[in-house]
Amino acid sequence: MKFELTILGSSSATPIFQRNPTAQILNINEKIIMIDCGEGTQQQMLRFGIKFNKIDSIFISHLHGDHFFGLVGLLSSMNLNGRVKALNLYCPVALKEILDIQFLHSGSVLRFPLNYFFTQTTSPQKIVDTPDYIVETIILNHRIPCTGFLFTTKKKLRKIIKQKVDELNIPKQYIDLIKKGFDYTDSQGKTHSAQTLTTEADAPRSYAYCSDTLYSLDYLHSIKNVNTLYHEATFLNDMSQRAKETYHTTALEAGYLALTAQVNQLIIGHFSARYKDVNLLLLEAQSVFSNTKLAIEGKTYRV
Amino acid sequence: MKFELTILGSSSATPIFQRNPTAQILNINEKIIMIDCGEGTQQQMLRFGIKFNKIDSIFISHLHGDHFFGLVGLLSSMNLNGRVKALNLYCPVALKEILDIQFLHSGSVLRFPLNYFFTQTTSPQKIVDTPDYIVETIILNHRIPCTGFLFTTKKKLRKIIKQKVDELNIPKQYIDLIKKGFDYTDSQGKTHSAQTLTTEADAPRSYAYCSDTLYSLDYLHSIKNVNTLYHEATFLNDMSQRAKETYHTTALEAGYLALTAQVNQLIIGHFSARYKDVNLLLLEAQSVFSNTKLAIEGKTYRV
Repeated sequence: MKFELTILGSSSATPIFQRNPTAQILNINEKIIMIDCGEGTQQQMLRFGIKFNKIDSIFISHLHGDHFFGLVGLLSSMNLNGRVKALNLYCPVALKEILDIQFLHSGSVLRFPLNYFFTQTTSPQKIVDTPDYIVETIILNHRIPCTGFLFTTKKKLRKIIKQKVDELNIPKQYIDLIKKGFDYTDSQGKTHSAQTLTTEADAPRSYAYCSDTLYSLDYLHSIKNVNTLYHEATFLNDMSQRAKETYHTTALEAGYLALTAQVNQLIIGHFSARYKDVNLLLLEAQSVFSNTKLAIEGKTYRV
Repeated sequence: MKFELTILGSSSATPIFQRNPTAQILNINEKIIMIDCGEGTQQQMLRFGIKFNKIDSIFISHLHGDHFFGLVGLLSSMNLNGRVKALNLYCPVALKEILDIQFLHSGSVLRFPLNYFFTQTTSPQKIVDTPDYIVETIILNHRIPCTGFLFTTKKKLRKIIKQKVDELNIPKQYIDLIKKGFDYTDSQGKTHSAQTLTTEADAPRSYAYCSDTLYSLDYLHSIKNVNTLYHEATFLNDMSQRAKETYHTTALEAGYLALTAQVNQLIIGHFSARYKDVNLLLLEAQSVFSNTKLAIEGKTYRV
């Protein structure tokens, strides 16, 4: 099952030349999901050729502007481009008020259903459950209420070995049963076990998104053993005091979290505008957790 | 006196790749003024090297998103960058509510005074009067209340001919009097007329900004004889019916307006996303008014 992450923005609070505020695209089995939507996200989508109307759901972690100021423009453009398909929006409750007042004064009436699902920030919730994946919130610790998101694919049925099915000329109607573990008996009465006709299903995979947070082990249980952890790394560790004051994480701390949570891969982003060269942040995180990558705008990562 | 216009955005409702929504910078004698502020304006400023904190005033024509969705992000960045200098904001009254609710939920407190001046849309008003220039509103006709803006520099004092002042060794304290038209009598009792010691002051210059409007002669009096008219030209004239329905102007109509108003120079912008090649719009406007230019992002025009 495809499970890919594309970075649209990697800057923290203020954009700098060539670095935009946070936004990401997840592709889970061709379901297109946006996570956060800083100013200029629609321009980034144009730049990287991502179609607005393919987006199925949008998840907003919190109401600092660098994580949502691009949303109203994106929704307006979807509307002007004739979208009719419903869009699911998972967000803090006040976002509805913020969007409504702007639509009101611009005389805009959305021609597509915008379905709001409000996140709460006291304990992790399962907020989405589809045949392919689930989404749970991660309770982060920021200056204002903030949730991360954990996307986990579901374990699918075992995979048919096509060559064997063809050899035995197994009728189509048996295939799903075999995938589910039923043995197959052929016309000569010979039984072929489901195990021999199939291979193991893909293991579930998981992506944890931790947008803005003070370094803490409080949410370790939510990110434990994930395949890919995206974590903010706003500062180098020599600014750990500043990170604490602003409820942010340093690159070193992000590395520690990845190590402690035993994740496969760490992607760091949300870089402070003060760092023209973000490789210093990468090296610092890698000094603790070697499989760390930088969030590079336009780049796609396998989860 | 310097009087220059820099285009930051040239697209209409939805941005397309390499065309951003409306925003402009005026430099009047080093006073930096922003007109409209579509999404991504701060990124455009970074691209073209225009410093956020130099902006003295911002004028917002109306509350369609492509003219103001970038404002809250720009103000937030100014705040995060430590601005303390007051900023004047000329805008429809509802914009305050829209900004306030976003600052409230993001826990942002502006550390600089944001002085609101609300435009009304029944008749043109003089809204700014400084020693260098005045600003008046232009009543446009759009789907929601919309004002354009007319910037006119003031006639200054006559200009001293430095060579003559040096030859006659005229003391400094007389210079302003001579500029104001007083004759100068030297130590030998010889009188030198102010006329011979000075040249004519620069003529006042004017820039009219007509953002979004149905083609009409109702505001002709406001744009009459201006040096530079910026006018929206959303469509080609074969779409004049669509222009009417959406309260927009065609390139041909913008050309007619420039001709009828006897302006010196016309700049057209606010191009519909349907036109990949905007030269067709230019040619159409030029067929009526030859001194027409395209609004090109990053380009600066002498008013």
